[in-house]
Amino acid sequence: MNSKKKPIIGVIMGSKSDWEIMKNCCETLKSFGIKYDVRVISAHRTPRRLEKFIKESENKGTSVIIAAAGGAAHLAGVTAALTTIPVLGVPMESVLKGIDSLLSTAQMPAGVPVATFAIGKAGSINAALFAIAILSNTHLDVNRRLKRYRANFEKKVPKKPF
Amino acid sequence: MNSKKKPIIGVIMGSKSDWEIMKNCCETLKSFGIKYDVRVISAHRTPRRLEKFIKESENKGTSVIIAAAGGAAHLAGVTAALTTIPVLGVPMESVLKGIDSLLSTAQMPAGVPVATFAIGKAGSINAALFAIAILSNTHLDVNRRLKRYRANFEKKVPKKPF
Amino acid sequence: MNSKKKPIIGVIMGSKSDWEIMKNCCETLKSFGIKYDVRVISAHRTPRRLEKFIKESENKGTSVIIAAAGGAAHLAGVTAALTTIPVLGVPMESVLKGIDSLLSTAQMPAGVPVATFAIGKAGSINAALFAIAILSNTHLDVNRRLKRYRANFEKKVPKKPF
Amino acid sequence: MNSKKKPIIGVIMGSKSDWEIMKNCCETLKSFGIKYDVRVISAHRTPRRLEKFIKESENKGTSVIIAAAGGAAHLAGVTAALTTIPVLGVPMESVLKGIDSLLSTAQMPAGVPVATFAIGKAGSINAALFAIAILSNTHLDVNRRLKRYRANFEKKVPKKPF
Amino acid sequence: MNSKKKPIIGVIMGSKSDWEIMKNCCETLKSFGIKYDVRVISAHRTPRRLEKFIKESENKGTSVIIAAAGGAAHLAGVTAALTTIPVLGVPMESVLKGIDSLLSTAQMPAGVPVATFAIGKAGSINAALFAIAILSNTHLDVNRRLKRYRANFEKKVPKKPF
Amino acid sequence: MNSKKKPIIGVIMGSKSDWEIMKNCCETLKSFGIKYDVRVISAHRTPRRLEKFIKESENKGTSVIIAAAGGAAHLAGVTAALTTIPVLGVPMESVLKGIDSLLSTAQMPAGVPVATFAIGKAGSINAALFAIAILSNTHLDVNRRLKRYRANFEKKVPKKPF
Amino acid sequence: MNSKKKPIIGVIMGSKSDWEIMKNCCETLKSFGIKYDVRVISAHRTPRRLEKFIKESENKGTSVIIAAAGGAAHLAGVTAALTTIPVLGVPMESVLKGIDSLLSTAQMPAGVPVATFAIGKAGSINAALFAIAILSNTHLDVNRRLKRYRANFEKKVPKKPF
Amino acid sequence: MNSKKKPIIGVIMGSKSDWEIMKNCCETLKSFGIKYDVRVISAHRTPRRLEKFIKESENKGTSVIIAAAGGAAHLAGVTAALTTIPVLGVPMESVLKGIDSLLSTAQMPAGVPVATFAIGKAGSINAALFAIAILSNTHLDVNRRLKRYRANFEKKVPKKPF
Repeated sequence: MNSKKKPIIGVIMGSKSDWEIMKNCCETLKSFGIKYDVRVISAHRTPRRLEKFIKESENKGTSVIIAAAGGAAHLAGVTAALTTIPVLGVPMESVLKGIDSLLSTAQMPAGVPVATFAIGKAGSINAALFAIAILSNTHLDVNRRLKRYRANFEKKVPKKPF
Repeated sequence: MNSKKKPIIGVIMGSKSDWEIMKNCCETLKSFGIKYDVRVISAHRTPRRLEKFIKESENKGTSVIIAAAGGAAHLAGVTAALTTIPVLGVPMESVLKGIDSLLSTAQMPAGVPVATFAIGKAGSINAALFAIAILSNTHLDVNRRLKRYRANFEKKVPKKPF
Repeated sequence: MNSKKKPIIGVIMGSKSDWEIMKNCCETLKSFGIKYDVRVISAHRTPRRLEKFIKESENKGTSVIIAAAGGAAHLAGVTAALTTIPVLGVPMESVLKGIDSLLSTAQMPAGVPVATFAIGKAGSINAALFAIAILSNTHLDVNRRLKRYRANFEKKVPKKPF
Repeated sequence: MNSKKKPIIGVIMGSKSDWEIMKNCCETLKSFGIKYDVRVISAHRTPRRLEKFIKESENKGTSVIIAAAGGAAHLAGVTAALTTIPVLGVPMESVLKGIDSLLSTAQMPAGVPVATFAIGKAGSINAALFAIAILSNTHLDVNRRLKRYRANFEKKVPKKPF
Repeated sequence: MNSKKKPIIGVIMGSKSDWEIMKNCCETLKSFGIKYDVRVISAHRTPRRLEKFIKESENKGTSVIIAAAGGAAHLAGVTAALTTIPVLGVPMESVLKGIDSLLSTAQMPAGVPVATFAIGKAGSINAALFAIAILSNTHLDVNRRLKRYRANFEKKVPKKPF
Repeated sequence: MNSKKKPIIGVIMGSKSDWEIMKNCCETLKSFGIKYDVRVISAHRTPRRLEKFIKESENKGTSVIIAAAGGAAHLAGVTAALTTIPVLGVPMESVLKGIDSLLSTAQMPAGVPVATFAIGKAGSINAALFAIAILSNTHLDVNRRLKRYRANFEKKVPKKPF
Repeated sequence: MNSKKKPIIGVIMGSKSDWEIMKNCCETLKSFGIKYDVRVISAHRTPRRLEKFIKESENKGTSVIIAAAGGAAHLAGVTAALTTIPVLGVPMESVLKGIDSLLSTAQMPAGVPVATFAIGKAGSINAALFAIAILSNTHLDVNRRLKRYRANFEKKVPKKPF
Repeated sequence: MNSKKKPIIGVIMGSKSDWEIMKNCCETLKSFGIKYDVRVISAHRTPRRLEKFIKESENKGTSVIIAAAGGAAHLAGVTAALTTIPVLGVPMESVLKGIDSLLSTAQMPAGVPVATFAIGKAGSINAALFAIAILSNTHLDVNRRLKRYRANFEKKVPKKPF
């Protein structure tokens, strides 16, 4: 990543139906003014599409890839196996409520890391915020926005629950 | 697979340390006189090796591929994504006793099947026996041996536990 | 199985209520032009019916038996105990979301294998596809269709989620 | 069961290796003077032996059958499917610590009950005590012993832990 | 229990809301012509009521007590601690889908057995059927009905799922 | 509890074998100069002993009762059902690593609370510290010691791990 | 806490959406005439607010703090780390039904205790009742009300479920 | 982080005993020539030390903080709440094998992300490698080493398991 160029985040998901959850990720990126490439890529059904996406991402200098999948959620792990771009995994809810997706994403063997986030919507938003935190290390403007976003919590979280 | 040729089974595992369990698979195949190719292939650390192995397997007419892995066990699923040869998955024991390996192997999305077996040694032996049962459909000699193996249980299982 | 005869797959389920899920299995077989016998057989309530079905299946040269059950899901294991025909198990959703069905199906002891698939609809479809992959080893036409089915994923999986 | 005849309990287990745990069951029965038949019977490896055992048990008027198995523990359920003699299931410890054995034994569908006890040694002893409690309903001498056994706890459980 | 007297089964549940499930138990008993006492008794909120119920049950010669509870389901265990009448436990569904209820009921320490059945409706029916199987040992008429009930499965379970 | 009298804590455990863990609880109480009554009481095997202990505890003005048990851990819940003295539950390790003990202790129904702590040694120490925190509300000397204990962490926790 | 002053309980929750459950806690306190401070405080989004709340609570002599949170539920633990006031944790339901919330709250390391209650509504009410039981040790009027509340169960729990 | 300065990684762990696992993290960083600060900081026992460490880290421009903890593992979450530096969480093995640690680390609410890695040693190494991947985006030398490390797998993973 060239820290002068406008950064790009890749956002991929195993199925079209994951969009309902993953749009929260994209909206978070957007609200910080971060560009992103969004794509449906299945590790199992379209493995060649994944390789192509990774190559393109490496060529255009993508900073982080966010990969969402459910069940035997291999997408993030397989992506991490094919690139040194940091890969963030978002486990989707499933028949088993996402515990399978979480374990399939988090329990990676030593050597090929995937940074895993919470199951479902919280993970979708947090993966975006984490990508932003990475960019924040080298992009002063992103850093400033992130600090403002955090400071806003005091205002946005009501003091009383009723 | 040409039913006249001597069949071959591919046996792959994510790490050298899986051999202790997977040798039971190979010994079972051997005891039925079935030829096998055994290889260490990590879905995450050596993804290119996997593609090469699958191509070779397809060229030589491998009948079944048995893939063993633990934790975020993606090997069987990734193999199944790249070939139409039937893939059998054996979940290895792990820090979480193998429940992560089992879910990562079994919970495949619709479209790309992996036949999953029990965690650890029982799964290692049963994957071999299942590959043999597949061959048994088209190889009379294998079918005869399998029936003999089953009939032997009456003798081999003692009637009294002491 | 005689590789010249038209193959047959047995599809059994523990309860009539499993049909909602298992019809996906049958539709998948049908879309590949594979014949199948479908029956409700409970390992616990109609054990004699199971024996009769297995005998008939062996006589007519059934290639694969797919068995679906939930909870203490014994159907696939008990079927596998009575025949050397390859048995595929599909765990149904349950009060515990199917984790009991999955463990009851997958954790078979060494000696009598059951090939286990995902809980619910994905497993129902994948068991059919796996049976097709087995047939594909010896039936060139099935093999061709399976390859086409796989190739189709590129078209059927949309590139963008919206 | 004829309440005048000396009662008999059947004790079966899926593997010889279960004896280490199940001898606690037999010793408990013995200490109450109850006769028992003990046998190794695998639901999967020796299904015909199970049918023979059940027929014999029915002929000799066995009051209760205790069935121990681990993993995909089908023995108790399959026994219950073949007889109306009350069946008690004891889940054995397994790779997954016995949670698979417990679920495979307890989660029986409506229609065919299995009375399930704790995983491992506690369940092995308690299945014996429960069989004794059943006999206790119709055998005054057993009832007296059971009450004495219970009364003894006050003496046998020390008041101080050191 | 005097085998000449008409047997009685005690049916208790921790909360009025368990009736929705436990009425299936009572209906099963009724359909076999078995008398039962049904009561709401909470091990935690009405412990004295439990003691009174047990004394009455012992006085009237109750054959079996069926106890249903959810969450930290102590009712069956506490009942078993206070009597030698056989106690059957039915785990109710809960926030955690009943896995807590199942473990709280099944994992009793050696010395005081509880016979545990499936979570929810299946367990509710099966506890009744198991009580009937116990009575069946000494009551010929109950035994005959139970055999008829079982034989009926062949008719009641449809052969085809559609 | 009279806040002028020297407070007493009751410490009970379901089995003598729990002492290995629960001595950590007693040593913690001792190190704060708190008096305690320690007793082995099984909710299932010695239910009358529990009632007697609770009556004695109420008579002598015991401030808190700490109850440790494993598996189907009913001791804390049953104690809480019989008294309004605050009851703390410590889940012991078990065949299932203590998840059963934790759920059996924590998942109490509304109306009768048990304060639950961590499985095993950490819970054993923390139950003592929590009892001390309760006393600390009304006993200035205990409050002072507790604050000193906490302040000490800065010294006792090393800054570097090697 | 000065036992002559009117006691106050702090009630905090990680999110406004927890109020639906936590109002049951506040209503229980209210029905006993106990004063409480209720606040939304997120351990993660508003950590400074938590420190301020604790300081205020210590200054006004709050007797007990009840903290509710879900998922990676850190609120109770972090509160306990910053004060010696007894902290009660209520795990909220989550994507994983609250098992994550329960473990995150209960499994505290030795040194800093959190008293944990049941997941959801039952825990919400029981945390209130437990706080009341603590106050009951030193406030005769609270003690009297608590005993009346308990005695009422006999009336409020119906004897028959229909 | 200034991309010209030599980067620093913070490595903190909840207990001295975590060093056995976390030294693998530090050795991995070292082998890539990355500087790191290592410290024992308990979220619960030394909360002030954590605040001080975070301030120092922000002042010296630390790029990433790796936080390891077990059980109710709050360290990573609490760290993330106090800084916008990217926080990586490593769940330690526990009484429950680490499933509690994993859920406590991964299931963070939306707003404050923690990047979670595998339980134990694999996670310890992978957190280091992920920190390196982040640096790799802006430090060409680190990027080159990381690519070499990955390329080495082909040599380091043996082709045959024996």
